[in-house]
Amino acid sequence: MKKADVVIVGGSAAGIEAAITAQKQYPSKNVIVVRKEEKALVPCGIPYIMGTLGSADKDVMPNALLGNAELVVDEVISIDREAKSVNTAGGETIGYDRLVLATGSRPMTPPIPNANLDNVFTIRKDIGYLKQLQTALKQAKDVVIVGGGFIGAEFADECRKMGLNVTVVELLEHCLYLNCDEDFCIPIEDRMRDVGVQVNTTCRVKAIVGDKKVDYVECEKGVRFKADVVILALGVVPNTELASDAGLEIGKQGGILVDQYMITSDPNIFAIGDCAEKFCFFTGKPTATRLASVATREARIAGANLFQSRRRQNLGTIGVFGTMIADVAMGVAGLTERVARDLGFDLVVGEATAVDRHPGSMPGARELRVKLIFDRSSGRIIGGEACGGITVGEITNVIAQAISSRMTWDDIVAAQIGTHPALTASPVAYQVVNAAEEAIAKLN
Amino acid sequence: MKKADVVIVGGSAAGIEAAITAQKQYPSKNVIVVRKEEKALVPCGIPYIMGTLGSADKDVMPNALLGNAELVVDEVISIDREAKSVNTAGGETIGYDRLVLATGSRPMTPPIPNANLDNVFTIRKDIGYLKQLQTALKQAKDVVIVGGGFIGAEFADECRKMGLNVTVVELLEHCLYLNCDEDFCIPIEDRMRDVGVQVNTTCRVKAIVGDKKVDYVECEKGVRFKADVVILALGVVPNTELASDAGLEIGKQGGILVDQYMITSDPNIFAIGDCAEKFCFFTGKPTATRLASVATREARIAGANLFQSRRRQNLGTIGVFGTMIADVAMGVAGLTERVARDLGFDLVVGEATAVDRHPGSMPGARELRVKLIFDRSSGRIIGGEACGGITVGEITNVIAQAISSRMTWDDIVAAQIGTHPALTASPVAYQVVNAAEEAIAKLN
Repeated sequence: MKKADVVIVGGSAAGIEAAITAQKQYPSKNVIVVRKEEKALVPCGIPYIMGTLGSADKDVMPNALLGNAELVVDEVISIDREAKSVNTAGGETIGYDRLVLATGSRPMTPPIPNANLDNVFTIRKDIGYLKQLQTALKQAKDVVIVGGGFIGAEFADECRKMGLNVTVVELLEHCLYLNCDEDFCIPIEDRMRDVGVQVNTTCRVKAIVGDKKVDYVECEKGVRFKADVVILALGVVPNTELASDAGLEIGKQGGILVDQYMITSDPNIFAIGDCAEKFCFFTGKPTATRLASVATREARIAGANLFQSRRRQNLGTIGVFGTMIADVAMGVAGLTERVARDLGFDLVVGEATAVDRHPGSMPGARELRVKLIFDRSSGRIIGGEACGGITVGEITNVIAQAISSRMTWDDIVAAQIGTHPALTASPVAYQVVNAAEEAIAKLN
Repeated sequence: MKKADVVIVGGSAAGIEAAITAQKQYPSKNVIVVRKEEKALVPCGIPYIMGTLGSADKDVMPNALLGNAELVVDEVISIDREAKSVNTAGGETIGYDRLVLATGSRPMTPPIPNANLDNVFTIRKDIGYLKQLQTALKQAKDVVIVGGGFIGAEFADECRKMGLNVTVVELLEHCLYLNCDEDFCIPIEDRMRDVGVQVNTTCRVKAIVGDKKVDYVECEKGVRFKADVVILALGVVPNTELASDAGLEIGKQGGILVDQYMITSDPNIFAIGDCAEKFCFFTGKPTATRLASVATREARIAGANLFQSRRRQNLGTIGVFGTMIADVAMGVAGLTERVARDLGFDLVVGEATAVDRHPGSMPGARELRVKLIFDRSSGRIIGGEACGGITVGEITNVIAQAISSRMTWDDIVAAQIGTHPALTASPVAYQVVNAAEEAIAKLN
């Protein structure tokens, strides 16, 4: 029987990062990663395969990242917790001292009639399947994307880069509405429309219609969208069957239940990434935020805790993400205004817009807007959104650090910020600082 | 006699930001800004006037920033602390309830023979003077820049964009050596050389030689550099005469002494920006870090404390700055490795390099390197440097927030980071996190 100190089930972002961390933290321990796929896709890069990269083979995480960990290409089908071993579809049994479940998630398949017609695709982390999707898109003229979350929006942008006639159908009032506030959804929707994507919000799909192959998407009120290809981008469900079959506890949001150290109800088994239950940094309640950056963070926590079980602590998920549609970037960290109000927070919101270089006459200068959301009673920042050019990604990370450090508005206005004409707003106009100052001014 | 609740002397970055903050914090108070110049330059933009912007008029801070503050174009020549008023060169007396000194700094003029020859310039925040410099550069072929700090390096880059034959003469072993470690100086020097700048380090200027007008710069060991124009970029000295004449205390680094609330030795007088003494966040000792971003931060602290004198506190200057030479950006926050060792810190240093988009096949992806410097005993981050493309500016701000929040290496590896293919490194490769992980791995 094969045996390793650490066996990791799943080798996408979370599994790979757990293998890296385990080796860094415990150089003397040996690590096996069991993964169904020979090659793992960069999950966030999947939309970009279609237009920007042109091939799924360009969106692969190098196996060299695994270092000295052994990669076993096989599927784990059961866990024997008593024997501390896993069994694979290939008939192998692999013993473990510590087991890490990084089994990920799969696309949600909606209860839409005919969702199984030919040329109706979900977004699977599977190179062969994505190649089929890409081939279908290359032969198509009209594509309908059901779901205008950030993956749907990114697919829409990539499909229009391929020259396709693209329609997005979103049930909610706005695209990206689960991720950001209306005032940040609108510039993204506007940019999508500018570049030729047809955006339909508050629009419910009734059925996918066709004979063997999809012909059109039928929505409420008799609206029909012609479709050679349909992409269903409706979120994910965690892969927890292996865990639940082994009797591990499952959380309210459907993930494998873990504590603040990423340990499941079995002290020798950790769970990380999309398959693991998450709880909110602000409320302590279960949350459904599933992102690769959250997954790798959990992997770094779990990886360090494997043999010293309280070394790193997960104080809850803030949720930090970015996207880019055409040349407009958008980022969100923490709670949106809408979600925070729904949770009962009394808010003070501050905003600031300025060019992202200075003076404004610097070539390439673009407007960049920041909104910060504060809890009135503590003065603490609990969320922020940014929209503008390419530096939005890292500005969102500046905001995220302020949130996780539980900074108040006064801390932020006294923050130590570096500025440069070619790289940032001016020190008088720096958006994060000025948005905090604006919030404080509202208290007078 | 004119009178205002708040009188601010000086209206560059610090003075303007103090006027903005005072109005936001105390809307009922009236503010007067007394400034010698009708228009104020964006200080960090000055090098870019020469090549990129093409005119000093494009590097001006709009007076609209002053809001309802009254701008008096005049020079304050004395302070009557007993009468709580200032006297101007124009013969006016202006009474104040609170006085803010934002008198800035002036270029250091070195003890080099013939530094007063025609076509030898310093870098003054003076539109007319900079227009003279630009005119001289337009008529020149060879320019020598004495001092390879970041302003000298930026001037060199701008002058070569104008098609000039540019030579930099730096006394220290490396350009930017007061700002960053050798391993970050070198890529900047290399890029300067790549684009045609002649970089001479460990090179001391003996004299400037010429008859009325400069002819060449003579260095030690008989080395001569032909020069139609010489630019002296040797740092600044604070303008403290007004304060010292009024009997205010001056600090060890030559700035007007202030407490953690930006209050001078007179409780009704604040000092901010280049004219004010600074102390180090890490050691509490006086420091000479003079940057526009430090100045505006002090202005926000002073502005809030004007009438509630302990509202915001300055816990010391971290020092965060960025620069860009050709297409290589560089940023530093906090202590460099060299300075930290000189101060007696026992260090652990971690580094990480990765492309700034992901996967690496994304168009425009560039290598970005981060080094983080930790205090071994506490595990706290005390410095960081970054080198790469345009997102370096905001990554440096991410590092700066980690430093000011006194994060440890474990906090940083568990940091909540957002990633996106078009905007950042991958979540597995995010440089700030991986540099911290690398430092921790060295402890094993």
